[in-house]
Amino acid sequence: MSTTAAVPLPALPDGRVVTDPDVATSYATDASLGSAAPEEFVVVRARDRDDVVAVLEHAQAHRIPVVPQGARTSLCGAASALEGSIVLNVEALKALEINTAEKYAVVGPGVINADLKRAAAAEGLYYPPDPASGPMSTIGGNVATNAGGLCCVKYGVTGDYVRGLEVVLAGGEVVRTGHRTAKGVAGLDLTGLFVGSEGQLGVVTEVVARLVPAPDPALTVLATFDSLDDATRAMVQLRAERNGPNLIEVLDRTSLQAIQAMEDFGFPEEAEAVLLVQSDRPGHAGEDVQRYAELLEACGAGEVAVADDAQEADALMAGRRALAPALELKGPHFIEDVCVPVTRLGDLIATARDICARRDVPIVLSGHGGDGNLHPCLFFTEGDDSREVAEEAFAEIVRTALDMGGTVTGEHGVGSLKRRWLPQELGETEMARQRAIKQLFDPLGILNPGRPY
Amino acid sequence: MSTTAAVPLPALPDGRVVTDPDVATSYATDASLGSAAPEEFVVVRARDRDDVVAVLEHAQAHRIPVVPQGARTSLCGAASALEGSIVLNVEALKALEINTAEKYAVVGPGVINADLKRAAAAEGLYYPPDPASGPMSTIGGNVATNAGGLCCVKYGVTGDYVRGLEVVLAGGEVVRTGHRTAKGVAGLDLTGLFVGSEGQLGVVTEVVARLVPAPDPALTVLATFDSLDDATRAMVQLRAERNGPNLIEVLDRTSLQAIQAMEDFGFPEEAEAVLLVQSDRPGHAGEDVQRYAELLEACGAGEVAVADDAQEADALMAGRRALAPALELKGPHFIEDVCVPVTRLGDLIATARDICARRDVPIVLSGHGGDGNLHPCLFFTEGDDSREVAEEAFAEIVRTALDMGGTVTGEHGVGSLKRRWLPQELGETEMARQRAIKQLFDPLGILNPGRPY
Repeated sequence: MSTTAAVPLPALPDGRVVTDPDVATSYATDASLGSAAPEEFVVVRARDRDDVVAVLEHAQAHRIPVVPQGARTSLCGAASALEGSIVLNVEALKALEINTAEKYAVVGPGVINADLKRAAAAEGLYYPPDPASGPMSTIGGNVATNAGGLCCVKYGVTGDYVRGLEVVLAGGEVVRTGHRTAKGVAGLDLTGLFVGSEGQLGVVTEVVARLVPAPDPALTVLATFDSLDDATRAMVQLRAERNGPNLIEVLDRTSLQAIQAMEDFGFPEEAEAVLLVQSDRPGHAGEDVQRYAELLEACGAGEVAVADDAQEADALMAGRRALAPALELKGPHFIEDVCVPVTRLGDLIATARDICARRDVPIVLSGHGGDGNLHPCLFFTEGDDSREVAEEAFAEIVRTALDMGGTVTGEHGVGSLKRRWLPQELGETEMARQRAIKQLFDPLGILNPGRPY
Repeated sequence: MSTTAAVPLPALPDGRVVTDPDVATSYATDASLGSAAPEEFVVVRARDRDDVVAVLEHAQAHRIPVVPQGARTSLCGAASALEGSIVLNVEALKALEINTAEKYAVVGPGVINADLKRAAAAEGLYYPPDPASGPMSTIGGNVATNAGGLCCVKYGVTGDYVRGLEVVLAGGEVVRTGHRTAKGVAGLDLTGLFVGSEGQLGVVTEVVARLVPAPDPALTVLATFDSLDDATRAMVQLRAERNGPNLIEVLDRTSLQAIQAMEDFGFPEEAEAVLLVQSDRPGHAGEDVQRYAELLEACGAGEVAVADDAQEADALMAGRRALAPALELKGPHFIEDVCVPVTRLGDLIATARDICARRDVPIVLSGHGGDGNLHPCLFFTEGDDSREVAEEAFAEIVRTALDMGGTVTGEHGVGSLKRRWLPQELGETEMARQRAIKQLFDPLGILNPGRPY
């Protein structure tokens, strides 16, 4: 690995270019499976917009690929270094200003999601998007992937909270999209086009994020189900509530077993599924969770536990939080991200388990049930063909999800790893159209090339 | 006027092409000021997607401009016939199917906004976007303008409820954007690009509209203010409520005088402003409006009236509804649509009144106060130079709004009439970029040319 040899460097103030190879290597990979540093790349840690402009001007002039990067939590390989690239890290762009009267925040792309939440909370406001990576991931990355999370069932996704952007285009032009007012329809909506574009159209240097009034601390119900159909029916009915949950998470039997194998959370290992359901409605969370509990019982839940205060609610969520370390303990795996109509979620879980059972591929199924957004984890062993077999199994799960009217990615993005599935979902004509849009913004194909375009 | 002579006709089944010149003329204009039929045009009333495809194939082959059209309620001249054009009316595409479990509706572009609301309500669901034209305007037009309305302060705008679209592009290619699942991030977001594109990028033939659980019937508070600053402060504080209003409308003194000149609604004519504020929160609208009333009083309101039931609430709204006929009675005028930060609304009202007073231009100011979205109406007399003077005054109001960080159109769109202001807001570089996107989708510039691109 070399951090300088083959990649010509832009003229930048001191301290921007990473010269220590070990430090550079730490910027080369993201959280996706198999992420590895390429042979030749350089890392620039931008400190302001001017640095971003300088890198993009230079890269265009020298036709060097640029990988825009935040906290490297990408699970789909959208933020790892490419061969011969400049990694343009914007974590240091941490401006954060809250306008309480107009209810928006102006934030740099390097601001951590949880830090924006905290700053908003200090003003009695709330920035809802809550990807599970929230404590580490940046707003820039959240915007680049149109990140979802746990509370989308009530609050929607990142894009629903982006009023406007400042973006540096390939070649260094700075553009502003959207507006700071509550409404605005002058011209085409380029904000929506940049949101979720995975660093393909430009580098976000500022986000105008809409804030909402703060909710109450969430209270929780936990319910076990012996039937996936019953659990699915419960989720559909919860979504129909006029004062609906801010969270409907599902852990299927495979998750319960993985969690229990690590630590005893008292989950019945033979239950088909556990649902975790929350309300954060100001002044009424307690009555909501009681009502949800009755609904869950009426839908055939076995055990139902209701948390009356925030501390108990947190304890009920501990099992959910234990899932991530339990998956790590269980060995090498890839985390997927399909989304189907909520009514099909039980079918998808059952079919995915069948698909994996036929191939002896261990699978753990959990996710944001209220959105129909499942994160199947497929396990394999290093050094044999089990990874290929797991990938075959996942291919069949993808086809199943697409046949159900679903998508290959609900919230993680396409990146490098899901690129192969995109034509199945969009078709080649649509891919060509999207490539043409990419080309309009980035004629030389410099920005995060191949992810996916 | 001829409906056939100069415009070559596509091959279409019987009954699609309007042959009666009087009927054709009725399709030539929209609700914008000065809308007039051109010399030569034809009207096609499409009955299905195939008709739309046939027209767009033909138009491309013969380089004929096409004006996509719904109920012709455009206030900015986006839906009136252009010289030598085919007017492609899609009012007859009225498919309407509701998926209660997944909470979306699949609707044809010709479905009237109020009909979608009614169909959703019959299933205990709610389609929030409510432009004042809701009883007449179509979903296709609402999508084309990203229509706002009265309830945006709580619910957002049309685009917030569009999950996916079927669109026929110039040349006749049919594309599908977005998804029916709750989440989905595979590929670029073209849905957002089409929403608000005013018929410039394609003709929408199907909309997948997100629905939410039905709220309660709204209850209302009416409050009078002797100070615009107090009224503005009240709006800002109402927006900060954790259980906030679904409607914050403002009528300034000029509106009160116009309404009282038509009929006595008991408005104090010397009040600076009246605020109308509603809650539709399930089970709690009554307590909300009481709390809003206290807040309004604390902000310096004079009279405060609270409606305890839906009928009374409706009576309080009668003055607001009387505004439209009062404006008509007052004579020729244009209705504008600026949007500024909510904190600047009082300033904008005062400045706009000054600007018009200096020129002796009668002005009436009202709008969706909670969004900072004002609809100034400037009056003139036919046959003298007063229209030009009113337009000069409006130009100064636009500059004022832009200087405040606002926009020339909060919800009506640009169309023909606001085209002149767009470069002031976007700048020429951004205009060029947007033109390039237009050209990508419509290389021959056939779709609604000049509105604005």
